[in-house]
Amino acid sequence: MIRRTSPIVLSPLKIFSDPVHGFISVPRRLILDLIQTPEVQRLRRIRQLGVGYLVFPGAEHTRFGHALGAMALMQDVLAVLQEKGTPVTPEEHTAALAAALLHDIGHGPFSHTLEHELISGFHHEKMSRVLLCRLNERFGGALDRALAMFDDAYERPFFHQLISSQLDMDRLDYLRRDSFYTGVVEGRVGVERIIKTMCVHPAEGGPEARIVIEAKGTYAVENFLIARRLMYWQVYLHKTVLAGDHLLRAILARVRGHLEAGTGGGGTTAAPAFLFFLKNRLDARDLDRPDVRDAYTSLDDTDVLFSIKQWQTSDDPVLADLARRFINRDFFRVTFLERPPTEAQTERWRGQVADWLVATGRSEAAHAEADTAFYLGFDASRHAAYDEAEAGSIRVIDRHGDVRELSRTTDTAAVTALTRFEEKPYVCYPKAVELRR
Amino acid sequence: MIRRTSPIVLSPLKIFSDPVHGFISVPRRLILDLIQTPEVQRLRRIRQLGVGYLVFPGAEHTRFGHALGAMALMQDVLAVLQEKGTPVTPEEHTAALAAALLHDIGHGPFSHTLEHELISGFHHEKMSRVLLCRLNERFGGALDRALAMFDDAYERPFFHQLISSQLDMDRLDYLRRDSFYTGVVEGRVGVERIIKTMCVHPAEGGPEARIVIEAKGTYAVENFLIARRLMYWQVYLHKTVLAGDHLLRAILARVRGHLEAGTGGGGTTAAPAFLFFLKNRLDARDLDRPDVRDAYTSLDDTDVLFSIKQWQTSDDPVLADLARRFINRDFFRVTFLERPPTEAQTERWRGQVADWLVATGRSEAAHAEADTAFYLGFDASRHAAYDEAEAGSIRVIDRHGDVRELSRTTDTAAVTALTRFEEKPYVCYPKAVELRR
Amino acid sequence: MIRRTSPIVLSPLKIFSDPVHGFISVPRRLILDLIQTPEVQRLRRIRQLGVGYLVFPGAEHTRFGHALGAMALMQDVLAVLQEKGTPVTPEEHTAALAAALLHDIGHGPFSHTLEHELISGFHHEKMSRVLLCRLNERFGGALDRALAMFDDAYERPFFHQLISSQLDMDRLDYLRRDSFYTGVVEGRVGVERIIKTMCVHPAEGGPEARIVIEAKGTYAVENFLIARRLMYWQVYLHKTVLAGDHLLRAILARVRGHLEAGTGGGGTTAAPAFLFFLKNRLDARDLDRPDVRDAYTSLDDTDVLFSIKQWQTSDDPVLADLARRFINRDFFRVTFLERPPTEAQTERWRGQVADWLVATGRSEAAHAEADTAFYLGFDASRHAAYDEAEAGSIRVIDRHGDVRELSRTTDTAAVTALTRFEEKPYVCYPKAVELRR
Amino acid sequence: MIRRTSPIVLSPLKIFSDPVHGFISVPRRLILDLIQTPEVQRLRRIRQLGVGYLVFPGAEHTRFGHALGAMALMQDVLAVLQEKGTPVTPEEHTAALAAALLHDIGHGPFSHTLEHELISGFHHEKMSRVLLCRLNERFGGALDRALAMFDDAYERPFFHQLISSQLDMDRLDYLRRDSFYTGVVEGRVGVERIIKTMCVHPAEGGPEARIVIEAKGTYAVENFLIARRLMYWQVYLHKTVLAGDHLLRAILARVRGHLEAGTGGGGTTAAPAFLFFLKNRLDARDLDRPDVRDAYTSLDDTDVLFSIKQWQTSDDPVLADLARRFINRDFFRVTFLERPPTEAQTERWRGQVADWLVATGRSEAAHAEADTAFYLGFDASRHAAYDEAEAGSIRVIDRHGDVRELSRTTDTAAVTALTRFEEKPYVCYPKAVELRR
Repeated sequence: MIRRTSPIVLSPLKIFSDPVHGFISVPRRLILDLIQTPEVQRLRRIRQLGVGYLVFPGAEHTRFGHALGAMALMQDVLAVLQEKGTPVTPEEHTAALAAALLHDIGHGPFSHTLEHELISGFHHEKMSRVLLCRLNERFGGALDRALAMFDDAYERPFFHQLISSQLDMDRLDYLRRDSFYTGVVEGRVGVERIIKTMCVHPAEGGPEARIVIEAKGTYAVENFLIARRLMYWQVYLHKTVLAGDHLLRAILARVRGHLEAGTGGGGTTAAPAFLFFLKNRLDARDLDRPDVRDAYTSLDDTDVLFSIKQWQTSDDPVLADLARRFINRDFFRVTFLERPPTEAQTERWRGQVADWLVATGRSEAAHAEADTAFYLGFDASRHAAYDEAEAGSIRVIDRHGDVRELSRTTDTAAVTALTRFEEKPYVCYPKAVELRR
Repeated sequence: MIRRTSPIVLSPLKIFSDPVHGFISVPRRLILDLIQTPEVQRLRRIRQLGVGYLVFPGAEHTRFGHALGAMALMQDVLAVLQEKGTPVTPEEHTAALAAALLHDIGHGPFSHTLEHELISGFHHEKMSRVLLCRLNERFGGALDRALAMFDDAYERPFFHQLISSQLDMDRLDYLRRDSFYTGVVEGRVGVERIIKTMCVHPAEGGPEARIVIEAKGTYAVENFLIARRLMYWQVYLHKTVLAGDHLLRAILARVRGHLEAGTGGGGTTAAPAFLFFLKNRLDARDLDRPDVRDAYTSLDDTDVLFSIKQWQTSDDPVLADLARRFINRDFFRVTFLERPPTEAQTERWRGQVADWLVATGRSEAAHAEADTAFYLGFDASRHAAYDEAEAGSIRVIDRHGDVRELSRTTDTAAVTALTRFEEKPYVCYPKAVELRR
Repeated sequence: MIRRTSPIVLSPLKIFSDPVHGFISVPRRLILDLIQTPEVQRLRRIRQLGVGYLVFPGAEHTRFGHALGAMALMQDVLAVLQEKGTPVTPEEHTAALAAALLHDIGHGPFSHTLEHELISGFHHEKMSRVLLCRLNERFGGALDRALAMFDDAYERPFFHQLISSQLDMDRLDYLRRDSFYTGVVEGRVGVERIIKTMCVHPAEGGPEARIVIEAKGTYAVENFLIARRLMYWQVYLHKTVLAGDHLLRAILARVRGHLEAGTGGGGTTAAPAFLFFLKNRLDARDLDRPDVRDAYTSLDDTDVLFSIKQWQTSDDPVLADLARRFINRDFFRVTFLERPPTEAQTERWRGQVADWLVATGRSEAAHAEADTAFYLGFDASRHAAYDEAEAGSIRVIDRHGDVRELSRTTDTAAVTALTRFEEKPYVCYPKAVELRR
Repeated sequence: MIRRTSPIVLSPLKIFSDPVHGFISVPRRLILDLIQTPEVQRLRRIRQLGVGYLVFPGAEHTRFGHALGAMALMQDVLAVLQEKGTPVTPEEHTAALAAALLHDIGHGPFSHTLEHELISGFHHEKMSRVLLCRLNERFGGALDRALAMFDDAYERPFFHQLISSQLDMDRLDYLRRDSFYTGVVEGRVGVERIIKTMCVHPAEGGPEARIVIEAKGTYAVENFLIARRLMYWQVYLHKTVLAGDHLLRAILARVRGHLEAGTGGGGTTAAPAFLFFLKNRLDARDLDRPDVRDAYTSLDDTDVLFSIKQWQTSDDPVLADLARRFINRDFFRVTFLERPPTEAQTERWRGQVADWLVATGRSEAAHAEADTAFYLGFDASRHAAYDEAEAGSIRVIDRHGDVRELSRTTDTAAVTALTRFEEKPYVCYPKAVELRR
């Protein structure tokens, strides 16, 4: 046995084992301290894909892993940029990592479904900013630079592009991650290759410098856009996901109705943080109110699920039915339509559903018409894979140093087609009802 | 455009996309109906590794995916056995799939940590049996054969071995799955190879027939044992996992103290299903009581987490501190000891912790001694990778048709070593306290 | 120890371990016997990507693995079709497997580069047919049905579609496989998903029945087309691959010149089977000559590489230089051009290269002009990802049973763009020469 | 369009796409220049697993990829060591990379089978050293430090341990790589984890400093040993691999017999570089002879395979039969024996094989006895997973700084068992002969 003569040096990095990216090294001090905050730990209780886990059994991953992953990719891309001659100071490095880690911190539970329901006009990026500011105060201004990058107010704007654009670390991580956990291998993006072909042009990285893709990365980027499109239509906007979204919104609307009418309906047995949002009609201007902030940061998936579980025993049979359906994954059917339904169609369908509600004892005849609002829904899925005109458009540099927006390069036959905005109307209704055309 | 002349045949299988095994085909009728029961859907809200997700960020997967996975492997192994000449009737096929799907249905939230805390003498297999019986009643006896296989009362005992032995579909799936989600690649087991080398001996599969491994599979099985050992020490019994377990148990003990003393402590704001178990001192004989069964099947991770979140604002500073620590992953430190601590040591350490509790204002001097019970813990991790003597031991057939228990084959140098039971005592205490040796 | 009472049944399947698809089960008798023929074993000595391994170090895989893989996918798709109600007889099953296994048996070494060089007007499919016929004779007509499927002369034409169309088992396997071995993850195709969505319409599978894709598979197919496009431009037509192709063709042309002129040049020390093709000017009508067939089936990568190695010491400095460059991977540079070069440009460049040949002592002044043929090349890469008009076009069935060609479905925004034929002219020249624009 | 104001900086790294490790970055200048040498390019024509590709269809990978991979892991481990406080100079970094890249440069074709056949007393490490010296001369002494590290003559011996020990970059890469290409997933080693737990003790890295593993890496190392053991018995010493080895050696012996006897036998049509070794009886003292070195570095798999293909048409029916068997993978059978055969057994078996040779017309009666030497073989497979006493043993450091040899740590129950040397005798004979016990 050999006695150690000097103490083992504490590694300046803490290692997380991530199934997607392998080992992720987290710098100690600021970044690790941020991870330890309640705001970031809360992301461990918010599933990344909302109701998606009810369709893809493996998609139970949370926003916490995504936050770590986006930060890990930020490390990778900064290493690539430095290698290609763009200097990055240690302060900028830390700020960029912090911004990547915290960029989604404002997401709430079942965010895609609920954010507009809980606070009207809400956008999670605004809440991320509110929470970033709060953390910045708590950390004595250590996040000033990260905040500037987040706001696109930093003097070297390419940092903002890495945090928020059409080809940022957020998108690269979430596509790769969601593809991994859903088992949808076609959504797998060549993250490594795309990052390897990124550079800053001009290389010094001043106020005019922007992220560009070397021409050899064009196909990988095109693949990324197609993969993103596939993930939207096959995962994020999957018919059963839309059905789950509908059910969740219907439950909320029903509970709100009870709360406003002062009828019981079981609403009072819900989680306090959730009730706060159901009782108060908040809008985007309230985001910065301390009580809103506090309620928001204490709200997560467990409050929503716990509450819905309680509502299964509500004395309102409609609420009980909706809640039971959600918990036991007994969703309505979603059918895509070639065009939005006509008024005559919706009228006819509403009648059919009302009849069924009465026939099955769910509603009394007097309420059946009104109750169809919870059992029948119309909406449309919308997605554009790429917006050439948007600020965060993707630019490509060829070997002569010429820079073009992606859809203007000769190699991307398919990109223009992808910029088309697609919209698919759909109707959501009980499986037992056979809608007449 | 071509009009279809006949309707598309509804596939007799429903497909689940699983990131671990790829596409899993679920036969419609009984098996799919079982998946739709509240008992099985509840597994979607119970994480497979309890507090493990707080150590391995990807390990957020639930027992639902594992149930599907074990069933999928059962399909695979039955196909292999049939190909090698062992007949399996359609009824046996369905029964074996059902038994694999339901084998873990009795697990509760944070099962590893809590099962003995909630119901003394509890074993999840007993509860699985209770729930299997309940489902069997509901399905009009359709699970009779599955139940017999589960109980090892079926006339062809090899089915029971596939459900419950030292090399069953349960273990093969959970090791593969937990390795996948934790990112601990060394735990990856060659499930496909092991299953391919399984056969029934004698092949007809009567009451004497048992599962044996062809000799060429010996190394793969040895690898499986080593991988299992590694997963125990690096994942299931990881120091930080043990620290999380300790904290969870300490919280429960504290709440129970309040409930029994009639002091408030915030216990009353908890989830009702959770409170049921905290208030009543139940033991294994109560499992079959309808109220216990009902409370149990409505209990999941959301109740536990929701309750702990509420207790963060308890007026008992100890409970509030413990709850806050759990929610924000501010665990105690676990240190392994070469041998169990002496009485003098534990006395000394208890004093240190008590002093710290007073100094930090957590306890009044009068209670500090008693409060150390929640801040200081002694226990030991235990694991044996393989038990040669156990009923479910692994047997190998060589090409002459001779069958030997695994550790008796010449090729498995390491197996005997693996049968050794290992035990590692440890102490758990606040990081701020520096224990004196 | 237990004595076996009955011998272990020999499994009717032989298992191959394939890194791409996992375990591949090969039925014994005909299929395994075919694998054991010299014609199929020869594929073990022919790399799938020709010179590709000199660009992607992992791409050393041969056509043998691809043949097995295409056969394995045929097993998968037939299982899916049968499950959806299309009957397949055991004879058809075997024939389809044989046809998938043998579909590429006519490929020769560095096939992409050399097939037209060795035999003018050659097409590997014609040679595959010749060899299939030869095997059929040897196996006493056992391949009659496979041959009919290969020829699209079988009464149920969907089998031919699975063997040869724009979405056949060949393409699905080679894209997945080449993506795997090159490490180009973006080329990874969701083979499993595509196969799961295939069905025969109408389901009975008579002479009108064709393979269709269920609408839910549309995105996966679109992804397949994009992945194929990416593999073409990033792998199969990679600039360095083109440079390797050029060099190989230049070597052949130089040796042929010597053989025809009767000058030595080292040509005579080459592999006999290779020399046979260099000496005789063969064309497609000769494929069925027994001597051609024999020489062809004895020719593989080792003959080509062995010969080039010998030519490194040729007394012709040009041949020696070209051979040395190939063996040591010292390729010329390939530069893509915006348009084909003008006559003036090619004249100027030819002069530059001739000057360099003289200056470096490679050519005497008198031959320099002629020698530029080996050091300077013009060509164009061509690829169309999908041809909507081609016989093997892809058809999609929606849930109402309507069938449409892929580019006519509403969901495939990008497909039309992909049907555009792309052509990229390029020039290939020594790196030491700086071509003037 | 934007004009570039400054030229794009040429990246100091060249990227290789490796299916095993992803992108491998190769520093330009020395390391890239070394890769471009004929000595390293030759590794592209030498399969890593010799005849292994005839058993595992995916195992067609060459020593070139392994050389790159070992170098890539060296980059990784040096980054880890530096992060933990062990300084590494740029010169040391380059030298260590060069040594890792070149460590196996002395391997020849079918090395495991042939090295002792071609040059008696040969060891590939000696030849690696010879070639390293030659390269060092050519590069003007640029490899002095790499050579010192290779020889364990460098002042900081931990570098040598990373190049050559029981846990070096060579082993880590080849196990990971061979597991990948064979599809034997159980052989997958947690390379990343092992490397992350390596450190130098004492950290400064002077002449006493050695590589140690942090205690938390113990299980990963144990897993590595078990995986290595499995790869030996299931891949490297697979029965069919042994049969291929036997056949290859029998062919060589037969050709040598002809060459020495001056009989034709077809030997003269072989590849010149291969004939050089068959004609001359060389031993280890000849390694440094220029003609031997030159012949050796021009020899690769293509020479061996080309020659065997020619010998298929030898007028010696035994040689023709053996050659045809090798090319068409028609191997003999290998059967493991419980103990080495007795003289009576070998005599009996020899008689059986001789009878079969005569009966099948392979041998005339007069030669049959002698010809059995080529058709019947006895040998034994040998492997020890770990040698605790060997110089390159593995040492573990616990958190108190105490260092112990691996098998002395309390956590590695199985390691002692693994140190046992295992030996399995076997016999190799034609499948048509049924050996009598």
